[in-house]
Amino acid sequence: VKKADVIHAILAERIHNAPQPIIATAFAPTNIALCKYWGKRDQELNLPETSSLSISLAEKGTTTAIRVIDNSLDNILFNGKPIDPTSTFGRRLLAFLDLFRTKHSVHFYIDFTSNIPLAAGLASSASGFASIVLALNQLYDWQLSLQELSILARLGSGSACRSLWNGFVEWEKGCQTNGMDSHGSLLPMTWPELCVGLLIVNTHEKSISSREAMERTKASSSFYSLWPDKVRVDLALIKEAIRAYDFSLLGKTAESNAMNMHAMMLSAWPPISYFQPETIAAMRDIWKLRQEGLEIYFTQDAGPNLKLLFLQQDLLRVKSRFAGIEVLQPFLS
Amino acid sequence: VKKADVIHAILAERIHNAPQPIIATAFAPTNIALCKYWGKRDQELNLPETSSLSISLAEKGTTTAIRVIDNSLDNILFNGKPIDPTSTFGRRLLAFLDLFRTKHSVHFYIDFTSNIPLAAGLASSASGFASIVLALNQLYDWQLSLQELSILARLGSGSACRSLWNGFVEWEKGCQTNGMDSHGSLLPMTWPELCVGLLIVNTHEKSISSREAMERTKASSSFYSLWPDKVRVDLALIKEAIRAYDFSLLGKTAESNAMNMHAMMLSAWPPISYFQPETIAAMRDIWKLRQEGLEIYFTQDAGPNLKLLFLQQDLLRVKSRFAGIEVLQPFLS
Repeated sequence: VKKADVIHAILAERIHNAPQPIIATAFAPTNIALCKYWGKRDQELNLPETSSLSISLAEKGTTTAIRVIDNSLDNILFNGKPIDPTSTFGRRLLAFLDLFRTKHSVHFYIDFTSNIPLAAGLASSASGFASIVLALNQLYDWQLSLQELSILARLGSGSACRSLWNGFVEWEKGCQTNGMDSHGSLLPMTWPELCVGLLIVNTHEKSISSREAMERTKASSSFYSLWPDKVRVDLALIKEAIRAYDFSLLGKTAESNAMNMHAMMLSAWPPISYFQPETIAAMRDIWKLRQEGLEIYFTQDAGPNLKLLFLQQDLLRVKSRFAGIEVLQPFLS
Repeated sequence: VKKADVIHAILAERIHNAPQPIIATAFAPTNIALCKYWGKRDQELNLPETSSLSISLAEKGTTTAIRVIDNSLDNILFNGKPIDPTSTFGRRLLAFLDLFRTKHSVHFYIDFTSNIPLAAGLASSASGFASIVLALNQLYDWQLSLQELSILARLGSGSACRSLWNGFVEWEKGCQTNGMDSHGSLLPMTWPELCVGLLIVNTHEKSISSREAMERTKASSSFYSLWPDKVRVDLALIKEAIRAYDFSLLGKTAESNAMNMHAMMLSAWPPISYFQPETIAAMRDIWKLRQEGLEIYFTQDAGPNLKLLFLQQDLLRVKSRFAGIEVLQPFLS
């Protein structure tokens, strides 16, 4: 199955809709997986080996403005700067836009504005691809559901399919070969006291893309075969924790899930590590705080930074310990 | 099976031998596992879940002098300082000595001299327990074989059973419940060009003992069930590498084996990490050097320090990159 077949299945005749004479603008939040997505069963369609579950970061994300231009090239800006069309991200984005061009002569002006550090493991590609499908939906008046847009966003970046909603979102892995059952769904629970702290320890771009890291893990880690079982157990625990507002269970399961993912990467060959020295120092601080009785946990994605999980009642204590932290309350925005 | 039963099976009547009127002195080297021992099938007898393979560090180790004294207490020194009998190591050592006291009135003067940093993941307990059984063998004129002494040393510390020889030593896990088939054996190969570099990044004592860390890993890591298979494959590869003097295969397999062990620890709950910030920085340096074409690998034990593996031809390049490194050539001492 090719991406174009999926586009056709979702848009059908609407692929030929004329663009509205507007600048279409949409925002999508970034999301932090509490139960991680690591490994694909289909590289082309970004279909995952396992389901996953995230929390969206409300006001942290990407705003995308898009319009059709009378030009022979796309004009794409990221935070005001032109995107290099030959860079990895540039090529990925252009290939994604190609899926929606009915004629070669259609070109876009796109202005991405992100309030999150690019490629520092804060899933800026997730909010980027989610906001672009939202904006395209307006531009071409497709009137698609969020579920359909989630499938389209997945074709750009797997985790983007979870960025169509605020709150807790589950990405069901699905079993169809065309991936029409592999998309995000909003969980109907809220947790106003829940805080996510962004602890930026290092803003260097990552040395290995998550796409490549996933492939190497799946191909060479002897532990990968047990990952689907681990995810099944952790997903059930996290949903139970959210249902019961059991923060210890939520934090413990999310941290354990992340550590298992990074453990698999270390066990790959060559070993993959998103740990920087500052990452390890911060982890040790968090473990020490927990030993001192503070209920604080963390998760880590494909970058060196940590995302802290704690409750509002501990906000001042956490802030006093981590000076540079940015705290978000996803359900209070 | 109790430790006392094993002692009886090995020493029989010799347990009643009178001590020689001498100070018995023996040296045993520390050893670095190229294929790790992680997890016990018998806590009492230190019987392992898997076989393992090490290289002894020749002149780096522990010298033990022992004699019987006319006193109501043992008098035990480590590098000239009295050992606290209530410390973890002190209690472990006294319990070990108790196995060899035929009467409560027998007490020892013991002087341990080690030229390796204590409890910094350099296996000082391995050379300590190996040298004490060698010294006891002299003191009581037991005339035991190295294989029998290896079994006795294992009762003190699992990895001590590999410290009775120089060179490459394999510890066969064995299958008997009394562990009489679980001991070290010397591999008859030498490799004069092989260098081991000790990179001490942090000399703090470890925060969790390897004994406790093994137990927690076995009890809570979802990946532990695959560890025996990983070891089986790695052991065969390492023996093949030694046979063929294939240094790339040796280095790669040893590093991968160590990373898999640390990966399992991270995946335990609570997570266990012997990584310090300096450990990660050093790992990244090594990976970078390897990308630059230098054949250098590392292994890491239950402490923050790394042991580099490389060939003599690269000694100067390695020394110029790691200023504080101590280099040993196990087969050239």
